[in-house]
Amino acid sequence: MRQAEELRDAVDAYLRSLMFASELGQLEKALRYSLESGGKRIRPVLCLAVVEAAGGDVEHALPAASALELVHTFSLVHDDLPALDDDPERRGRPSSHVVFGEGAALLAGDAFLAEAVRLGLRYDDPRIARELVEATLGMIGGQYRDITGDDDLTELHRLKTGRLFVASVGLGLRVAGVAERDQARWRAFGSEFGLLFQIVDDILDGDGLAGRLPSEDVMRLADSSAARARKQLEGLDANTSVLRALVDAVTFRTA
Amino acid sequence: MRQAEELRDAVDAYLRSLMFASELGQLEKALRYSLESGGKRIRPVLCLAVVEAAGGDVEHALPAASALELVHTFSLVHDDLPALDDDPERRGRPSSHVVFGEGAALLAGDAFLAEAVRLGLRYDDPRIARELVEATLGMIGGQYRDITGDDDLTELHRLKTGRLFVASVGLGLRVAGVAERDQARWRAFGSEFGLLFQIVDDILDGDGLAGRLPSEDVMRLADSSAARARKQLEGLDANTSVLRALVDAVTFRTA
Repeated sequence: MRQAEELRDAVDAYLRSLMFASELGQLEKALRYSLESGGKRIRPVLCLAVVEAAGGDVEHALPAASALELVHTFSLVHDDLPALDDDPERRGRPSSHVVFGEGAALLAGDAFLAEAVRLGLRYDDPRIARELVEATLGMIGGQYRDITGDDDLTELHRLKTGRLFVASVGLGLRVAGVAERDQARWRAFGSEFGLLFQIVDDILDGDGLAGRLPSEDVMRLADSSAARARKQLEGLDANTSVLRALVDAVTFRTA
Repeated sequence: MRQAEELRDAVDAYLRSLMFASELGQLEKALRYSLESGGKRIRPVLCLAVVEAAGGDVEHALPAASALELVHTFSLVHDDLPALDDDPERRGRPSSHVVFGEGAALLAGDAFLAEAVRLGLRYDDPRIARELVEATLGMIGGQYRDITGDDDLTELHRLKTGRLFVASVGLGLRVAGVAERDQARWRAFGSEFGLLFQIVDDILDGDGLAGRLPSEDVMRLADSSAARARKQLEGLDANTSVLRALVDAVTFRTA
């Protein structure tokens, strides 16, 4: 069984070797820049860990796992634009629009979304690409709530981060061939994992929940979310050791 | 056999009844605004006319035809943004970003692209959604060439407008079940139709080819393109009267 670090290496290698549509021309440089900026690849790693725990083939799952990272990167590139967060830096480097200009960054984000779908469409089962675009639409809805100052943080988190985490689990299950009727607990884990990730992110950034509640309360929320995620894993008839390690890794980011 | 006007009415009715992902929330207003702004629906009408000429079921083709219109609308909404053309008007009304703000227009464009793919994924044959996203990537590559001042107008047109016109024909052929080996002439027609549309557009806007060549020369290019498009239709063993009427309608826009 491969550990999270090995799965991440497999994702990185796959992303580096990925061929973008040749018609994108020089725009490819902007895509490579954003994709090779050292993200944690948490969504594709989660997807691959689910595939392995469910007895599927990790190699066969690499396009689906990478599609999740491309959707995530699409959202970051567009979020950083002046029209949204106007963030000149991303992961310690200048944002795409600072390096390539606003127009190119806008188009690069569009291309990321289209390339993500193209990866999801490498499978004959259209449900894989369907789940990917439906999660993307939920995420876009979450971003819209974010810019309009929606007060319901729980719903905002469920959409903006949660939908793609659940899809990370969902795509893993589909690639591994897990029947729909056996997916509920896995997906409940994905939902909890997404919530945990977001709470920890809020703690690290000092915003969201961390801006509204005393820090002990937010830490308590993170702990109880991690406990529920672990409990979902215990209820699964599978070797979930890598998934459990991912929960620990996310939780320990706050320690 | 339904005439172009009836096909357009069918597309309009379908688009009006289209359910967007509920998670988009109030962003739906921005999508409806751009979608119901009275476009000519030339791409979906072309698609449906191909379906009918090839003996397919027009009703069955409505999701694919509408997906093409959504990709086109996605490109218009993003093109109008200050980051690209900075166009405050579209079809005689304020652009999406003027009405809803830049952030919402950016997200609305993203949502159009994702919804387009979702429509393409209503079919069990993944090749329909694949052709749609591949054409979209070509179009994005064309937009990138446009903002970087690429001098090769032929290649720019082939990508920025041509790819989606060929896909309009291609999706029609796929929905109608035309075998790959029988598609070449239909697709050659689609390519020629896209070129004709672009030349006429340049004439009407006074830019592109019309900004580089004397107007008689551009008119001659349009005439010879229309002649080649009609010739492709004559070579098809099908009732192509509606497709021929579409060629005439595009050509007569210059008259």
